[in-house]
Amino acid sequence: MNIKDQWINIIISLQNEICAAIETSDGKACFKEDIWVRPEGGGGITRVISNGDVFEKGGVNSSTVYGEVNDAMRQQMKLPKDEGHSWFACGLSIVLHPVNPHVPTVHCNYRMFELYSKEGTVIDRWFGGGTDLTPSYINEKDIVHFHTTYKKVCDEFGDSYYPAFKKTCDDYFVNTHRNNERRGVGGIFYDYKKAITQQDADHWMQLGMRCGKAFIPAYLPVVQNNRSMPFTQKQKHWQEIRRGRYVEFNLIHDRGTLFGLKTNGRIESILMSLPPTVRFGYNFEPEKNSEEEKLLQICLHPRDWLALTPD
Amino acid sequence: MNIKDQWINIIISLQNEICAAIETSDGKACFKEDIWVRPEGGGGITRVISNGDVFEKGGVNSSTVYGEVNDAMRQQMKLPKDEGHSWFACGLSIVLHPVNPHVPTVHCNYRMFELYSKEGTVIDRWFGGGTDLTPSYINEKDIVHFHTTYKKVCDEFGDSYYPAFKKTCDDYFVNTHRNNERRGVGGIFYDYKKAITQQDADHWMQLGMRCGKAFIPAYLPVVQNNRSMPFTQKQKHWQEIRRGRYVEFNLIHDRGTLFGLKTNGRIESILMSLPPTVRFGYNFEPEKNSEEEKLLQICLHPRDWLALTPD
Repeated sequence: MNIKDQWINIIISLQNEICAAIETSDGKACFKEDIWVRPEGGGGITRVISNGDVFEKGGVNSSTVYGEVNDAMRQQMKLPKDEGHSWFACGLSIVLHPVNPHVPTVHCNYRMFELYSKEGTVIDRWFGGGTDLTPSYINEKDIVHFHTTYKKVCDEFGDSYYPAFKKTCDDYFVNTHRNNERRGVGGIFYDYKKAITQQDADHWMQLGMRCGKAFIPAYLPVVQNNRSMPFTQKQKHWQEIRRGRYVEFNLIHDRGTLFGLKTNGRIESILMSLPPTVRFGYNFEPEKNSEEEKLLQICLHPRDWLALTPD
Repeated sequence: MNIKDQWINIIISLQNEICAAIETSDGKACFKEDIWVRPEGGGGITRVISNGDVFEKGGVNSSTVYGEVNDAMRQQMKLPKDEGHSWFACGLSIVLHPVNPHVPTVHCNYRMFELYSKEGTVIDRWFGGGTDLTPSYINEKDIVHFHTTYKKVCDEFGDSYYPAFKKTCDDYFVNTHRNNERRGVGGIFYDYKKAITQQDADHWMQLGMRCGKAFIPAYLPVVQNNRSMPFTQKQKHWQEIRRGRYVEFNLIHDRGTLFGLKTNGRIESILMSLPPTVRFGYNFEPEKNSEEEKLLQICLHPRDWLALTPD
């Protein structure tokens, strides 16, 4: 089987495995599936969950799309002039927005991109992905668990990976227009991992698969720990304010969203990442020394979470 | 008095006049003022109203900003390479989001831009602006009143203006990523109106001032007609879905928002335009032949409102 088909299999298996685990965790809502076709080539399987016991809105989407390179795409992806005639992309994209403000929002994406010459030869190939956590309230134990789970996976592939991917994540999910406030407490993120040889492709495919599988043990225990915590209207209000920041990041800065818009992806599948209910307050500032301010300070000054638990 | 100072006076007078009229219309809430200074030059007067009898959230902002031309700005404004050493901009920006889904959201902006040589000579100057209406439900009489008010003002300056500005408005406030769905039912919009000579500057300043003043008779009667209409939770839900489209347009497409972000404007003043509460439903589709679908169809196929009422 060629690399492309191996990766498609990995993505579809991950999608099935993760959807099943999320439904079990939620206990009430089930995914609704929409299979869509992209007129220019390919399509996707969108699975959306809503009004669950845990999950207010979320999606676990796969897409397998291809086509000819056009100008909008060349500009968006900063492809060299005249290089590449057609392309292929396949990825998994997850966003879950829980009801309870004590349960963090999570995002996860693993993807592969191939670029072809006019004759159909692979002239470039790269992998990217990551998983990151966006809480409205800080629970240090949960955040350390989340980061530790991903560190363990990364360590199997290279000692430098976790610290590098953790930093890339902190540097990427940033609302630069808001004094460099991070979207959340990070996780891992990597991109443009070149994999022309079979050996490199195997390495990055394996990493993507293992990180995808780690979504379940990294996130669902955090859900379990917090899903029954009582919350106030004030805390729900704060969650909706933070969701506003999530919208700002996704619509102004996110490369994945822009890639989807530029390549004529299915708009409802791309924007399933947006939270169900959101507030944009004018100049909302949390009270001094409150739990809300603690979250904000951490978003402004990302922590090295694993330094908290030396071996 | 030079043109720049004349325009600043017009903007500040409009801001005061319009704020007073909105407070009278609302009858409960008062504007809260924040005066801000831009580190690189200039600043603004932000006035925000919230939790009113009519207005759930809104702002009437003036800004007077200047500085040196930088690369981000050159790219954003498509300025010719090496042309322009410093710049000045002054404008009024209004967005009002009413509580009642039967009262339309409104947006209005009138602005002037000057570009200077290294020696401080004005090498370019242009005016732009517009006022547009974004209802959640169609009330044809109100929309015709709104368009008629602006047509009358435009007709004083040139017969071609209203039809041209109406079309520019329909072509600008478009969610291109949603099958070219318009944000609302339009109004007028014009941009890059060159005004190097005193005569041209007088013409476009007068037009901007008259259009700014027309905001009150164009919009406030529409508020008055609908503010007491009863509404259901379902109608409020639809308003929040439509507000989601408003967010998408402002964050993905709006030049004014992008100009503010690229020129390091005050973020809370720029994003005061975002609605107070918003919903992003997955693949929400209004019922066939419902009032909600009627609005959507009009957003997809803009009407010539004044053809409805031949003289």
